[in-house]
Amino acid sequence: MAGKEVAVLWLLAVLGYGSGGKVLVWPADNSHWLNMESILQELVVRGHEVTVLLPSCFLILNATQSSPFQFEVIEVPITKKEIATLLQEAFYFWFHEERAQPLWKGVYKMAQMLSKMEKVTKIICDEALNNKALMKRLKASNFDVLLADPLAPSGELIAEKLGIPFVYTIRFSMGNTVERLCGTLPAPPSYVPAIISRLTDRMSFLERLKNIFAYAAQDFVYHYFFWASWDQYYTDVLGKAVFEWPTTLCETMGKAEIWLIRTYWDFEFPRPFLPNFEFVGGLHCQPAKPLPKEMEEFVQSSGKHGIVVFSLGSMVYNLSDEKSNIIARALSQIPQKVSFLSSLKQLLGSWAFITHGGTNGIYEAIYHGIPMVGIPMFADQHDNIAHMRAKGAAVALDFSTLTTQDLADALKTVLNNSTYKENALRLSKIHHDQPVTPLDRAVFWVEFVMRHKGAKHLRPAAHHLTWYQYHSLDVLAFLFTCTAIAVFILVKCCVFCCRKCGKGIAKRKKE
Amino acid sequence: MAGKEVAVLWLLAVLGYGSGGKVLVWPADNSHWLNMESILQELVVRGHEVTVLLPSCFLILNATQSSPFQFEVIEVPITKKEIATLLQEAFYFWFHEERAQPLWKGVYKMAQMLSKMEKVTKIICDEALNNKALMKRLKASNFDVLLADPLAPSGELIAEKLGIPFVYTIRFSMGNTVERLCGTLPAPPSYVPAIISRLTDRMSFLERLKNIFAYAAQDFVYHYFFWASWDQYYTDVLGKAVFEWPTTLCETMGKAEIWLIRTYWDFEFPRPFLPNFEFVGGLHCQPAKPLPKEMEEFVQSSGKHGIVVFSLGSMVYNLSDEKSNIIARALSQIPQKVSFLSSLKQLLGSWAFITHGGTNGIYEAIYHGIPMVGIPMFADQHDNIAHMRAKGAAVALDFSTLTTQDLADALKTVLNNSTYKENALRLSKIHHDQPVTPLDRAVFWVEFVMRHKGAKHLRPAAHHLTWYQYHSLDVLAFLFTCTAIAVFILVKCCVFCCRKCGKGIAKRKKE
Repeated sequence: MAGKEVAVLWLLAVLGYGSGGKVLVWPADNSHWLNMESILQELVVRGHEVTVLLPSCFLILNATQSSPFQFEVIEVPITKKEIATLLQEAFYFWFHEERAQPLWKGVYKMAQMLSKMEKVTKIICDEALNNKALMKRLKASNFDVLLADPLAPSGELIAEKLGIPFVYTIRFSMGNTVERLCGTLPAPPSYVPAIISRLTDRMSFLERLKNIFAYAAQDFVYHYFFWASWDQYYTDVLGKAVFEWPTTLCETMGKAEIWLIRTYWDFEFPRPFLPNFEFVGGLHCQPAKPLPKEMEEFVQSSGKHGIVVFSLGSMVYNLSDEKSNIIARALSQIPQKVSFLSSLKQLLGSWAFITHGGTNGIYEAIYHGIPMVGIPMFADQHDNIAHMRAKGAAVALDFSTLTTQDLADALKTVLNNSTYKENALRLSKIHHDQPVTPLDRAVFWVEFVMRHKGAKHLRPAAHHLTWYQYHSLDVLAFLFTCTAIAVFILVKCCVFCCRKCGKGIAKRKKE
Repeated sequence: MAGKEVAVLWLLAVLGYGSGGKVLVWPADNSHWLNMESILQELVVRGHEVTVLLPSCFLILNATQSSPFQFEVIEVPITKKEIATLLQEAFYFWFHEERAQPLWKGVYKMAQMLSKMEKVTKIICDEALNNKALMKRLKASNFDVLLADPLAPSGELIAEKLGIPFVYTIRFSMGNTVERLCGTLPAPPSYVPAIISRLTDRMSFLERLKNIFAYAAQDFVYHYFFWASWDQYYTDVLGKAVFEWPTTLCETMGKAEIWLIRTYWDFEFPRPFLPNFEFVGGLHCQPAKPLPKEMEEFVQSSGKHGIVVFSLGSMVYNLSDEKSNIIARALSQIPQKVSFLSSLKQLLGSWAFITHGGTNGIYEAIYHGIPMVGIPMFADQHDNIAHMRAKGAAVALDFSTLTTQDLADALKTVLNNSTYKENALRLSKIHHDQPVTPLDRAVFWVEFVMRHKGAKHLRPAAHHLTWYQYHSLDVLAFLFTCTAIAVFILVKCCVFCCRKCGKGIAKRKKE
């Protein structure tokens, strides 16, 4: 954010103090923060007081810098450097090792890394909950709502401890398990592809088989590996009465009043959802501003061929020499000039966008109607590019086997085949033609929860059912049993009658 | 509508002609028209040209009266009187005969009436389609969208013949079958009560059993009785290529771009829905206007006790003397004055609303936050009152067994127990606190379809699946078969090994 904008927001925050509500924030690190920040800025503009609970080890937040938000720093015995190393380790694994080693070794390494991240989350949560002065201060502040990113647990636990309603802002949880199993979001496996499956909504028989396996595997992993360790933690913190079930992580997460999902139907395949789910994808996008002077000159100098924008996102700090050469050689084969950007503000006017497929970047491309060449790497990126490809606005490439020829061909396809541009423009039209902008909808529902102390009227009764009740398995089992008994009795009766008749006939024959 | 309003709308229609789009309308009769009319009026205000296809036998439309809409009258060999007689017959059956005779006789009578109504619908549709001049005129008019009420089929058939996209406005189809089976709207029977079941979203085991039976029965009836006769009709009209499946009614109805549902979460139990379903309940409600002089004097004369409004809707022309006496005696027991209304505009300021439970009236009560005494009679009315009762804003009574004491007690409960008023006000707050008003949302999506020639990006891929694919039954059957074969082979192998070992041991023992 530019200094002037911060100053204006800060002034608004000071002026608005007391007239609006009070928002507590449980953020997630890195690109997840970018999306949430847009909502928080708008909340400040509307006169609300925003307080961010900030673990001292988070990378992208700097509590000392001028900001329209207030910060409550949670001092944790972890350094930013340790977090950065952990992330680098994960990326190194995804880029170089994932396919290079046997499956069991990969899964073991992955589990190890997830376990480390879980430990970090628990340390942060411990430090927050055990800091009596902090908790007392938060309690006394009488917040109206807590806005949390459920990438890692804890936000909902703080909200429960403080007795305030909470709202989630989320792209998706791993395996969609939090939305599906805790939020009771229906996902028919016949046309709603599982997360990270790279499938679309039009699946063959084998793909639907794969999809069901993907759902089952994800549910299993998160039930038995991820949630299990948190359930005890939540029960310890929130307590339970004698004879009561323990308070589980999933039950607590399911109490979210509103789920702000970071996609919309320009990106998402149409699927069933619930009234407390709002699809607010692209809320961080803004109309293009005039380019800085040197950038404007660069674009002008490109002449009739225009420019192509290249960005692999905020998480990729450097590429290997080999990959860099492959990319450089491909980019030299097109007549367009290439801009390497870390910020995407300048995407408008570009003829194509070479992207890793992060949601934020894809939404900039949708917003401005730019076709894409996707080189996905990890997390949701493969899925994101699969979506854009299915909608005809992107060509997908494989980073691990990338050659100069692949990239050059993909670029030429996107630049010369006009259907890619047309489809990108179609998605852009859909994005801009909504009754209310995504940002206004997101802020509306946060404010709604503040005004009404929740949004219980949107909460489905499915939350009161067990999983077998939800799927009507008890009713079906009852009907099956009744039918079986009826058939059994009928058969017995028939057999009995036949025998009686048989005996009668035999008797008569004897006579 | 008052004369002045019509004049303004008419002027707007004339001025707006050519600047907006062209909307063709396939309406339904009676109270269904009231809701649709609000959308059409707003479309005219926004400069669109609205043409209503009007069967000459429809009761509430009068093509000769001054109106902001254009009418294309379909001359049918049925008189208004015949339609009125048919409806009277149905009401007489619902009021007096439904419970008085044995079940089979009731079902037979009901089937007879439905068959008569179906014949009327087919005659109307025939007259429209066979009127070559009319169809040519409609085709030449290049309409942008057709807005239809799918209470009876035909609207979607006209749209298909004209090659234009269509939008539905609907409270619900009988058995919800059109939304569920043609629109692929998910309805988990564990917490989404079947239509006319009078159940809520919180069901016991037995209620869930009843609910599953209700769904099964409704699907069966509409598959084999209602749709079957229309499928041939649609195939005949739309034609089919050799080797193609016939064009079914359900397939054609499923092509609706947007489904405007006449409820919202102030009324509806939270349930899963799809992106092309918009819940726009209460769009016909408007802020209260100053009362006419005599009405104002009547309200003032009621003093501190206020008034109670009594209305049994637009379809009940007269009550039996017995029922009238029961009601009159009950109303004399409360200190409030009672207003008997056919129009509900004056509901604001009333202390309670005695209603038959039609959706339009209930929404007036929600809009103004008035608690209700419900005396439901037929169609969705029992369900509507069950919803309001579950949300704590109404007391329900049984019309067929109604006594003076019942009504007097119910009125006293609603007037003296403040929770009813509080709940009604809570629903009113929910209704008024939406990002966009229901009417604006409804019109937005009609206009969206006009701008984009459809809303295909909201259409779930479920439409491409057969029913067994949708429920993943083929995948599950495959998995079951594989498992069965694997178990069979495993058992056979074990048996074989055991025998080998057994023989070996026996052999060695012998030696």
